[in-house]
Amino acid sequence: MSAKIIDGKMIAEIIKKDISKKIKDLEKEYKKTPNISTIKAGNNPSSEIYIKLRNKGCKQVGINTNTIDFPENITEDELIAAIKKLNNDCNVHGILIQLPLPKHINQDKIINLIDPKKDVEGLTPKNMGSTLNGDEKIIPITPLSVLTIIENQGIEVKGKDIVIINHSNHVGKPLAALLLNRNASLSVCHVFTKDLKFYTKNADIIITAAGVKNLITKDHIKKGCFLIDVAIISTKEGIFGDVDFNSVKDIAGIITPVPGGVGPVTVACSLKNMIKTFKNCNS
Amino acid sequence: MSAKIIDGKMIAEIIKKDISKKIKDLEKEYKKTPNISTIKAGNNPSSEIYIKLRNKGCKQVGINTNTIDFPENITEDELIAAIKKLNNDCNVHGILIQLPLPKHINQDKIINLIDPKKDVEGLTPKNMGSTLNGDEKIIPITPLSVLTIIENQGIEVKGKDIVIINHSNHVGKPLAALLLNRNASLSVCHVFTKDLKFYTKNADIIITAAGVKNLITKDHIKKGCFLIDVAIISTKEGIFGDVDFNSVKDIAGIITPVPGGVGPVTVACSLKNMIKTFKNCNS
Repeated sequence: MSAKIIDGKMIAEIIKKDISKKIKDLEKEYKKTPNISTIKAGNNPSSEIYIKLRNKGCKQVGINTNTIDFPENITEDELIAAIKKLNNDCNVHGILIQLPLPKHINQDKIINLIDPKKDVEGLTPKNMGSTLNGDEKIIPITPLSVLTIIENQGIEVKGKDIVIINHSNHVGKPLAALLLNRNASLSVCHVFTKDLKFYTKNADIIITAAGVKNLITKDHIKKGCFLIDVAIISTKEGIFGDVDFNSVKDIAGIITPVPGGVGPVTVACSLKNMIKTFKNCNS
Repeated sequence: MSAKIIDGKMIAEIIKKDISKKIKDLEKEYKKTPNISTIKAGNNPSSEIYIKLRNKGCKQVGINTNTIDFPENITEDELIAAIKKLNNDCNVHGILIQLPLPKHINQDKIINLIDPKKDVEGLTPKNMGSTLNGDEKIIPITPLSVLTIIENQGIEVKGKDIVIINHSNHVGKPLAALLLNRNASLSVCHVFTKDLKFYTKNADIIITAAGVKNLITKDHIKKGCFLIDVAIISTKEGIFGDVDFNSVKDIAGIITPVPGGVGPVTVACSLKNMIKTFKNCNS
């Protein structure tokens, strides 16, 4: 039997429809339209694509966007001033910093300056802490997207053996916290893991975000497992994830494809968070 | 060969000696003595013991303490007012809430009100978020104690298979974050875990804080593993941890005993955090 292939675009459309309705209701209530500002510095080509996709999504659901475009050689002080201005501007209801920032900028320092109320990506210490202690406020977008996909399949994570292959601040660590909040038995692996297969062969759900093409093959998984592939690897031959799709497709139970899996849901989840920051700014 | 038994009291004494020296230096620099306030509500007998032990430790290293003792029937509003007063009092350089609070009080709400600068236990969202994102500021005390014990043995956690049996806000989750920040391959188990042995038999280090006597026996571990027993189970027969000490002592490589293992180090680590809050209040 072949694995069920998740249609991320369809899930995203359902979320966007719901958000669209909620935005209309909130506009009536607050008598204003949400405005989201993105700060971008330099000319990273992936950044351009992400911003374009997100702004398109915003337009679809009725959120206004504004991208502040700084040159590669912007100073840290100029960026700090820009964020403070957005924090204090009552017509801005959400702030995103498009990563990566230029190398001479301390990314964490910049992120930490965002007013947690307006922190669309949920990466400020206060929001990360609430994610860790189970009092979830604004959840980082990729983890929220993974959780949304799992819940969309009607799967309860409580007691499930789940492996995350990634331990970054944006993906692995907050996702681990979210799954522990929901009582999963959780393992986090990464490049320093001695024996990845030990973990993955036992897993009911594998969430992989390593950025290593063909990292996960049929030899890594048990029959019927749920594979969530967060990686986006651009090559001349096309876009790939971590999972060797052809190798696993007859053994896995459910797979998210790349492209068309986690990606579109992640964009939709960023819109979900914008509703939260919009509400925060009006409460 | 028998396992090496860790002497927690000795580690604690070394830490306290170092803190004592640091306090003297800071007193000269700031021209004041650190004052730490503990809020306590009700008459939980373990709370009395913890406070007594901690205050004794404070006295040893030259930290002044003050315990504000509220009755069991205190209201949430009264507690909130007490915390706000301590937050604003420039003669208070650290705040602890002795848990558990009475059942009618929302513990998280109360903890979240502490000024993160003065948060000795590192449990406010901002400090928890910094722990999660690797920009560690004030680390929760029990996780800090476990880390201190591991480092004291000269063991690097990078790439090690580590299992934590506990997923609470005070122990398991922040400890998981700390070990991921140091590149361990990390698993978190708990009461909902299907097959605890699968994880523990593979582990280089097991940190157990389940509160279940004899949870970990020789059948759960691999030869030479490092067992850190955080549990404190009081019975008529004495105080026990999660580990069946006699069962594992010839197989484990290193063990922390209960009592006399993690406990004393935890008290010493609370003093370590008081230095941080004292510095925060003077910077």
